[in-house]
Amino acid sequence: MSTSILRTADAWWVRTPAGAVRIDSDAETTAELLADRSAIDQAAGEPVPVESLALVSPVTAPCRVVAQMTNFVSHVKDAGMNPAAVPLTFFRKTSGSISGPSDDVIRPKHVRLLDYEVEIGLVFGAPMPVGTEITPETLADYVAGVVITNDISARDLQLPKTQFYEAKSYPTFTPVGPALVLLEADELKRFADLRLRLWVNGEPRQDMTAADMLYQPVEALRGLTRFQRLDPGDLLLTGTPVGTALSAPPKPVEVIASLLPAATKWKLFFKGQARNPKYLQDGDLIEATVGTDDGAIDLGRQRTVVRWTR
Amino acid sequence: MSTSILRTADAWWVRTPAGAVRIDSDAETTAELLADRSAIDQAAGEPVPVESLALVSPVTAPCRVVAQMTNFVSHVKDAGMNPAAVPLTFFRKTSGSISGPSDDVIRPKHVRLLDYEVEIGLVFGAPMPVGTEITPETLADYVAGVVITNDISARDLQLPKTQFYEAKSYPTFTPVGPALVLLEADELKRFADLRLRLWVNGEPRQDMTAADMLYQPVEALRGLTRFQRLDPGDLLLTGTPVGTALSAPPKPVEVIASLLPAATKWKLFFKGQARNPKYLQDGDLIEATVGTDDGAIDLGRQRTVVRWTR
Repeated sequence: MSTSILRTADAWWVRTPAGAVRIDSDAETTAELLADRSAIDQAAGEPVPVESLALVSPVTAPCRVVAQMTNFVSHVKDAGMNPAAVPLTFFRKTSGSISGPSDDVIRPKHVRLLDYEVEIGLVFGAPMPVGTEITPETLADYVAGVVITNDISARDLQLPKTQFYEAKSYPTFTPVGPALVLLEADELKRFADLRLRLWVNGEPRQDMTAADMLYQPVEALRGLTRFQRLDPGDLLLTGTPVGTALSAPPKPVEVIASLLPAATKWKLFFKGQARNPKYLQDGDLIEATVGTDDGAIDLGRQRTVVRWTR
Repeated sequence: MSTSILRTADAWWVRTPAGAVRIDSDAETTAELLADRSAIDQAAGEPVPVESLALVSPVTAPCRVVAQMTNFVSHVKDAGMNPAAVPLTFFRKTSGSISGPSDDVIRPKHVRLLDYEVEIGLVFGAPMPVGTEITPETLADYVAGVVITNDISARDLQLPKTQFYEAKSYPTFTPVGPALVLLEADELKRFADLRLRLWVNGEPRQDMTAADMLYQPVEALRGLTRFQRLDPGDLLLTGTPVGTALSAPPKPVEVIASLLPAATKWKLFFKGQARNPKYLQDGDLIEATVGTDDGAIDLGRQRTVVRWTR
């Protein structure tokens, strides 16, 4: 059965039906906690209401934060691309972008088009040197658990720069949590049943299961371990389904745009996008959930509020 | 006066006219060595010939490795872009890609188009939290020194994936050294005089000074510290001049290609590139130097040999 780990500034907790139970561990990082599995399993004592806890991210920084580009068939099509032609692609985010499951998402003064992307985060529990062979049978030896993440994106930086690193790396651009859910091997096999949902001010924006993924975790990790070492506590964001504010222009518009000088093209594009009401506004409430429809695996609900820096 | 630091598996050295002198320091990382400046300054004892040392990278991993995209006017034009429209852009490389100044550069079996990019690496000596203000006057407080780097790139992965992270991150894809050259504030002001040169089997391929850079270090760090914390021992690669094997197709060809499906476009492109003899071949000797023409600042000579995995 899955185990839900919560974290506050000074302690780690296990979520039980009766409330949160404190873990007797000195772990200061997610990696140290994962190495102390007996402390997790032996957590006992007086449960406290989860609502009474000020939760922070259950994934501690610094750690490696790697993300998969356009990994849902629905999102790839919406971006105007052919899923068959989309290679397995990774980029990096700073771990300084990690924030808690109810922290504000801060839009820097120079950013205009702020977007959301609900994603399942894989948290690793064992070292994977370059060349580690990952198979469906060994996947659970490396993946300790899963967590809700939001891959906040400054689209007006991301598109002209082409490299995604900066546009997705500002502080608070990776809300993580509430729970790091440790999965048994048989539960991890249900990965494709996990449903990702995201709402803005109660309005549904994203709703899709991981079955829509182009590259499932085994394939993703096979590709990643060709060049990147991973260690316990590192985080992989596995892509977002259709429904972000950014949506691709129709093909004929794109072809015409390819003939324009870059500066003119982006000016026209951003003028159009500025009228798109789906980009995140000051005060917007973002809610995100991930879980199986039968409730057997439940990563909780992330609730963050957008704040514009002026 | 600049100070040239060398590193072997078990020691740090200062380069003197008489040879390399051992530094009496227990530092295990570049950050620890930089914090032990008095040990560097007090290095004394019997000099040994530099040629007798088996040098490793003077920048130790793990560390952050950040790189600037297309940062030389000459390279931007060669890539078919307008320098005025190129934004300041960063991407990440793994620090697992760092290798020594005479280590082999290994081409993985699945890579076809291996390319070189000589770059100046900035090595930091002080923490820069997000929001740190960098000015021409304070730059030398943060930049400890400079080092030769080669940003080895698998072009057949880089272009279809669009994100540069994987294509530039395989083990041995960032040869670093031989020397980490610590600069005084007045020497750092001569940054634009540094000339980057690269040869393959003795044939000159790249030769340009840093004056050709679109974004000099002050501007680059101002942009980077908006979103990325940096710490002592971290490395920033500042871009490469014209002369890489990859060269952009002429504009009309590019416009026609934009009308083709992605798979067809890349097939045609790689067929053309496969006939390009400038890509790195098995056994090729890459040599790279960086320094001022008057010899006042000299980062040494990096010599690596390309090996294909079969």
